[in-house]
Amino acid sequence: MARTMQKNGQKTVQKIVQKFGGTSVADIDRIKAVAQKIKREVDLGHHIVVVVSAMSGETNKLVEFARQAGQSQGSPEYDSVVATGEQVTSGLLAICLQTIGVAARSWLGWQIPIRTDGHHGRARIGTIETDNLDACLDAGEVAIVAGFQGRDQAGRITTLGRGGSDTTAVAIAAAIGADRCDIYTDVDGVYTSDPRIVPAARKIDRITYEEMLEMASLGAKVLQTRSVEMAMKHGVRVQVLSSFDDMIGSDWPGTLLVDEEEIVEKQLVSGVALSRDEAKITLIAVPDSPGVAAKVFGPLAEQGVNVDMIVQNISEDGRQTDITFTVPRGDIDSAVSIIEAQRGEIGYGRLAPDATVVKISVVGVGMRTHAGVALKMFQTLAEKGINIGVISTSEIKISVLIAEEFAELALRTLHAAYDLDAA
Amino acid sequence: MARTMQKNGQKTVQKIVQKFGGTSVADIDRIKAVAQKIKREVDLGHHIVVVVSAMSGETNKLVEFARQAGQSQGSPEYDSVVATGEQVTSGLLAICLQTIGVAARSWLGWQIPIRTDGHHGRARIGTIETDNLDACLDAGEVAIVAGFQGRDQAGRITTLGRGGSDTTAVAIAAAIGADRCDIYTDVDGVYTSDPRIVPAARKIDRITYEEMLEMASLGAKVLQTRSVEMAMKHGVRVQVLSSFDDMIGSDWPGTLLVDEEEIVEKQLVSGVALSRDEAKITLIAVPDSPGVAAKVFGPLAEQGVNVDMIVQNISEDGRQTDITFTVPRGDIDSAVSIIEAQRGEIGYGRLAPDATVVKISVVGVGMRTHAGVALKMFQTLAEKGINIGVISTSEIKISVLIAEEFAELALRTLHAAYDLDAA
Repeated sequence: MARTMQKNGQKTVQKIVQKFGGTSVADIDRIKAVAQKIKREVDLGHHIVVVVSAMSGETNKLVEFARQAGQSQGSPEYDSVVATGEQVTSGLLAICLQTIGVAARSWLGWQIPIRTDGHHGRARIGTIETDNLDACLDAGEVAIVAGFQGRDQAGRITTLGRGGSDTTAVAIAAAIGADRCDIYTDVDGVYTSDPRIVPAARKIDRITYEEMLEMASLGAKVLQTRSVEMAMKHGVRVQVLSSFDDMIGSDWPGTLLVDEEEIVEKQLVSGVALSRDEAKITLIAVPDSPGVAAKVFGPLAEQGVNVDMIVQNISEDGRQTDITFTVPRGDIDSAVSIIEAQRGEIGYGRLAPDATVVKISVVGVGMRTHAGVALKMFQTLAEKGINIGVISTSEIKISVLIAEEFAELALRTLHAAYDLDAA
Repeated sequence: MARTMQKNGQKTVQKIVQKFGGTSVADIDRIKAVAQKIKREVDLGHHIVVVVSAMSGETNKLVEFARQAGQSQGSPEYDSVVATGEQVTSGLLAICLQTIGVAARSWLGWQIPIRTDGHHGRARIGTIETDNLDACLDAGEVAIVAGFQGRDQAGRITTLGRGGSDTTAVAIAAAIGADRCDIYTDVDGVYTSDPRIVPAARKIDRITYEEMLEMASLGAKVLQTRSVEMAMKHGVRVQVLSSFDDMIGSDWPGTLLVDEEEIVEKQLVSGVALSRDEAKITLIAVPDSPGVAAKVFGPLAEQGVNVDMIVQNISEDGRQTDITFTVPRGDIDSAVSIIEAQRGEIGYGRLAPDATVVKISVVGVGMRTHAGVALKMFQTLAEKGINIGVISTSEIKISVLIAEEFAELALRTLHAAYDLDAA
């Protein structure tokens, strides 16, 4: 089938991949509701591939079984056990569709096949053979694909890691040349900020892949980072939308991820995000000698502690310096232990750990071409008397570390300052 | 590996298939206990293939999901859903074995492959390719096979029907030329009668396939009938033993199913069995004309009511007859309805249904060559004042229908009369 061009509201036949996550298929009633959504797209004449996750709770149950048996991470046996969750959902959804008169069949990773490397528990997709799926669509059947899984060269079942069904959906959309990949989830799109904190937050109609990646890495966990990267690489148009309302993807109710060129009126700032999973550690009075940074961050990296922001201030006399960095909040104790064990090696005055900080970020592709975004951020926070700890920037993002008590105030104030508030 | 001859206690390397049912793998602790049993056989130097069922309760849960979704019996999707139960157990058991230092890997039906016909939900095994299993055993690994499943020509998962894991085990034992197939279950063997009713019942060391088939069809549901037929056809030595004690198959604790020639000292009667799942219907005063039996039993067969025993008495005047037959107790109401709907066609005086009957059977290959077994049964029951309703016989079985209230008395009395009581 030829790939068709599409515009909003256009009525041509399209190839659409739909992905439904665990809460969307939590029980039989929810699966039946999903079947109705699929039927509506089928009734519009579209060709549909559906990717499903395990019913919510099932994967955790299977992981716990494997842990009790003796394995806590990916292995051939672990993957064979854990992959059954998606297998069950795919078969049940096919049954629900058949029951309401929609031709459908389930496809397991090994049946398509989706070929992966042999890294069990975190396998990467190599090639997806499309003959079987194409034949299924051409026969007028909805193809229901068990997400999160594939097969390796040895013919064993592999899993892509948690959240991997998003990646399955985007990879299949790329492989079959789908017009759109609709990711049905428990939110109705990507917002300019967290609506629970910022009541004036608005749903974003279109967002670039790059912005979505920055938002995702900031804890706006709507989409798995890896699936966004894959969508960007292959130019897959991804729509994030809710499975809990009456809309379907062809109604365009959600947020569409697109190339930057597709967005004519670029926002200076697309969103303001908050991450609470932050802790700050300052090494005070460190000798300002070459290689000192390596002595601090080498051991942390070796122990798997992920360092995010780093700032180094040179003291007045030029002989001592302070080093501040951030780690995930849950890692603060181990980070402190690691640094203390290196005290003789590094030679510092004292350690000042602080787990009462948060990170606020403004994200927008517009800031590539507009100056003054950072200045506005600093001024706005200063006007409210909010002190900025650490600053880090990327091409389309500025992040600052502030005291936790100002989190909500800062988020709401910046949201208004960048004219993001709903009219 | 060459098939080795074996005798009790012999220490040569053997190929052994072990099958563990749902109660034997009910939870992780039980699966760990199973792993220990397997390890003991491995430590004796034997090559082991294990066939597992789903954890008890899992299959029922999956069947209920499928029913709620809209399908209550075998279909490609139903089978794909239901087969996950065994997939989970096979992976978990492989993990438990690896955890205690025993090399093991799981095999799904499609990976071996076990090829079946396309009758989903009740598929029959065609061929089992043994290259993969042989290579696994030669590599010193225990092969853990997910029971109850295979793949059809279209590459879809099929299931063999409930209890199909016994069949998987026997079929694999036949295919790889196993020295023995140990069926671990929740009883420690086949008994001369139901020990809950006949305290003097003894465990049988060796029983012929034919006797086991008669016992199985009588409700002594230790083994699935189909698996016994297959064992008989291929000469697979099957041992029934308990997974809930400390013995392993090589200790020979259970009941061995063998060819008749292997039993030197043949018992006249090997067991006395009771079936309570019986109901009797008598048609009184039926015209004794040709074709009347077809008018009675044709409609029953069409409606799927399984008729077991049939007796027809000719009345004094030779113009009317009574017809008595038995059906499973749960079918009595529908059988009565079917016969009543045919009343005009058949033309009978009245119907006498009776759901308070049981069937008692004595089974033994010895009765082929010894007269008087039936006579002893009738005399023994008469001495206790127990009236016999219907009688049916096969080459190695005599069954009688009696009133339910005499069930236990009859069973115990016959057990003693045929010298089966434990010393």
